[in-house]
Amino acid sequence: MKIAVDAMGGDYAPGVVIEGLAEAVADFPHYNFVLVGPVAKLPFYLEKYGLTGHPRIELVNADTVCEMSEPSAISLRGKRNSSITVCARLLKEKAVDAMVTPGHTGATVAATKVLVRTLPGVDRPALAASLPAQQGRFILIDAGANPDCTAVNLTQFAIMGEIYAQYLFKMASPAVGLLSVGGEDIKGSALTKEAFKLLEQQPVNFVGNVEADAIFEGAAQVLICDGFAGNVLLKGAEGLAKSTMFWLKRVLTKNAIRVAGAMLAKNAFRELAAFGDAADIGGAPLLGINGICIIGHGSSNPKAVRNAIRVAGECVEFGLNDRIVAKLHETGNTTAELEQKIAREK
Amino acid sequence: MKIAVDAMGGDYAPGVVIEGLAEAVADFPHYNFVLVGPVAKLPFYLEKYGLTGHPRIELVNADTVCEMSEPSAISLRGKRNSSITVCARLLKEKAVDAMVTPGHTGATVAATKVLVRTLPGVDRPALAASLPAQQGRFILIDAGANPDCTAVNLTQFAIMGEIYAQYLFKMASPAVGLLSVGGEDIKGSALTKEAFKLLEQQPVNFVGNVEADAIFEGAAQVLICDGFAGNVLLKGAEGLAKSTMFWLKRVLTKNAIRVAGAMLAKNAFRELAAFGDAADIGGAPLLGINGICIIGHGSSNPKAVRNAIRVAGECVEFGLNDRIVAKLHETGNTTAELEQKIAREK
Repeated sequence: MKIAVDAMGGDYAPGVVIEGLAEAVADFPHYNFVLVGPVAKLPFYLEKYGLTGHPRIELVNADTVCEMSEPSAISLRGKRNSSITVCARLLKEKAVDAMVTPGHTGATVAATKVLVRTLPGVDRPALAASLPAQQGRFILIDAGANPDCTAVNLTQFAIMGEIYAQYLFKMASPAVGLLSVGGEDIKGSALTKEAFKLLEQQPVNFVGNVEADAIFEGAAQVLICDGFAGNVLLKGAEGLAKSTMFWLKRVLTKNAIRVAGAMLAKNAFRELAAFGDAADIGGAPLLGINGICIIGHGSSNPKAVRNAIRVAGECVEFGLNDRIVAKLHETGNTTAELEQKIAREK
Repeated sequence: MKIAVDAMGGDYAPGVVIEGLAEAVADFPHYNFVLVGPVAKLPFYLEKYGLTGHPRIELVNADTVCEMSEPSAISLRGKRNSSITVCARLLKEKAVDAMVTPGHTGATVAATKVLVRTLPGVDRPALAASLPAQQGRFILIDAGANPDCTAVNLTQFAIMGEIYAQYLFKMASPAVGLLSVGGEDIKGSALTKEAFKLLEQQPVNFVGNVEADAIFEGAAQVLICDGFAGNVLLKGAEGLAKSTMFWLKRVLTKNAIRVAGAMLAKNAFRELAAFGDAADIGGAPLLGINGICIIGHGSSNPKAVRNAIRVAGECVEFGLNDRIVAKLHETGNTTAELEQKIAREK
């Protein structure tokens, strides 16, 4: 098992990435690593975290970095030797089994789509983020890889999301819901109405339309949507969580009695802040790419990097992509087959 | 000034509605009311809240109710005499200046679109919900009236939202942002990219694309989006807020010290829960309809009903609809003009 790690991904690269890699090296003795980044900059941190000349770490040079603020298309065209592009090339050439980057989501999607390509039968890859529900978590797919989707895409997201949920939640038959604006099947957009008809016929545990409020109460383990709505839900949840901590601080510091109360309960607020924290999972896989690719949050800490590496390795061991390809082909859900089905029904 | 109030709207009708009406009757002596509902059921509550035979309240019968769980199209077709339909008919006939319902959003949109119709030059009405930002609030338009929108719709939502924000926030030039999945204008969906080009040319304070996390930090006072994404953001925020209070309770009750701390600070948590509460505004106007229509939350309390009535009256006094029509026509943004502009640019 060999995993490419983008040393330059995220807001605190390469220090945080290499610190996370050091944890992974210690915890997963059966994994080998390719650390991708500007080789001149890496020795300082490798030394700092005790990884200098480590037998399970190979260094591969990448001169440039995709800055978080850059448009993704420009990153790909202009930076053929960026750390993300080099990771994607290693994945394409099967020099590694998986890649991990806490970097630029858009650039990673663009690079892997162009270089690694999608799995046989898959039209579009999708980002499978995980968010907290009142009990446990749920998977949001697509969380932002495709702003515009078709009913074919949403149907394939259901199958890819189900298989990822089988791995992540250790469940045989996770509930799959379609994000919509109404509980009844007559509500929704033109896209969700068309997707609903296809999803009803799928060999997945489809529970119908799910509204955005119900998902946090555990209405489904997998929530299917286009990448625009998914990204709005993901970013909106992040923004509201941050604002909630801001409001909480404001109301708790209004007078001395409240401040005293807050001091007594201070560990509780730390735990509350951690509910939204995905460091246990470390990142979101880009499903449907012909290789395992885990994208972490730009603000990943070492623990998140370590866990993104763990998830990457486990997805390979689980045979995630083989399972996706097998199910799509066995159930007649390749792109060509779904498009024919839609054409027939029209 | 005469305002129709749907006695049967919301989860606790008619008691809560009539209790709220009683507050409005006392607070707004210059308003007259038409209370719409099954006249046999209303006297008990009118008596309870001291409104029996009140000179400023007229009763109009409506036999049936749109249950919250019913599909909206069925409500309209099958229930010609529902309280929502009767309110819409009064609005159409100019028997009232405004209507208020804490009822079924979908049924209200359907009934007003068909009976009252849109303002001259407006293609689609839009629901303008208000949500809390770290400081103040922002308006989300469309919050769910149109699951599928065109760039023409989003452009008109910008102008309608700006004028509503001028009333609600007492600002001359509120910042108008386009909900998108990337800060740069090259990101987004096909719809938002097309709308961006139109919005750039508008005589509004357009601040470009805004991501869902930035809006809670106050990136704009008006957030433009299609009704699918808007409803996902609105419902997602409601769901996450509810789950946050659930998690907060869980972490605060873990041990006796935390419980003691939480007791000391208990008023703070009450204030926190109230941040999401829109009772001060009472409801969301359905903008673009040829009459003022305020739709409250199904869980409205009497204060929310009272404030929805206040907002309805103030929107009439502000001349909201006249301002919308004037600006759309003066700036060449009627539906026909915008469609011609798009056709020319293609």
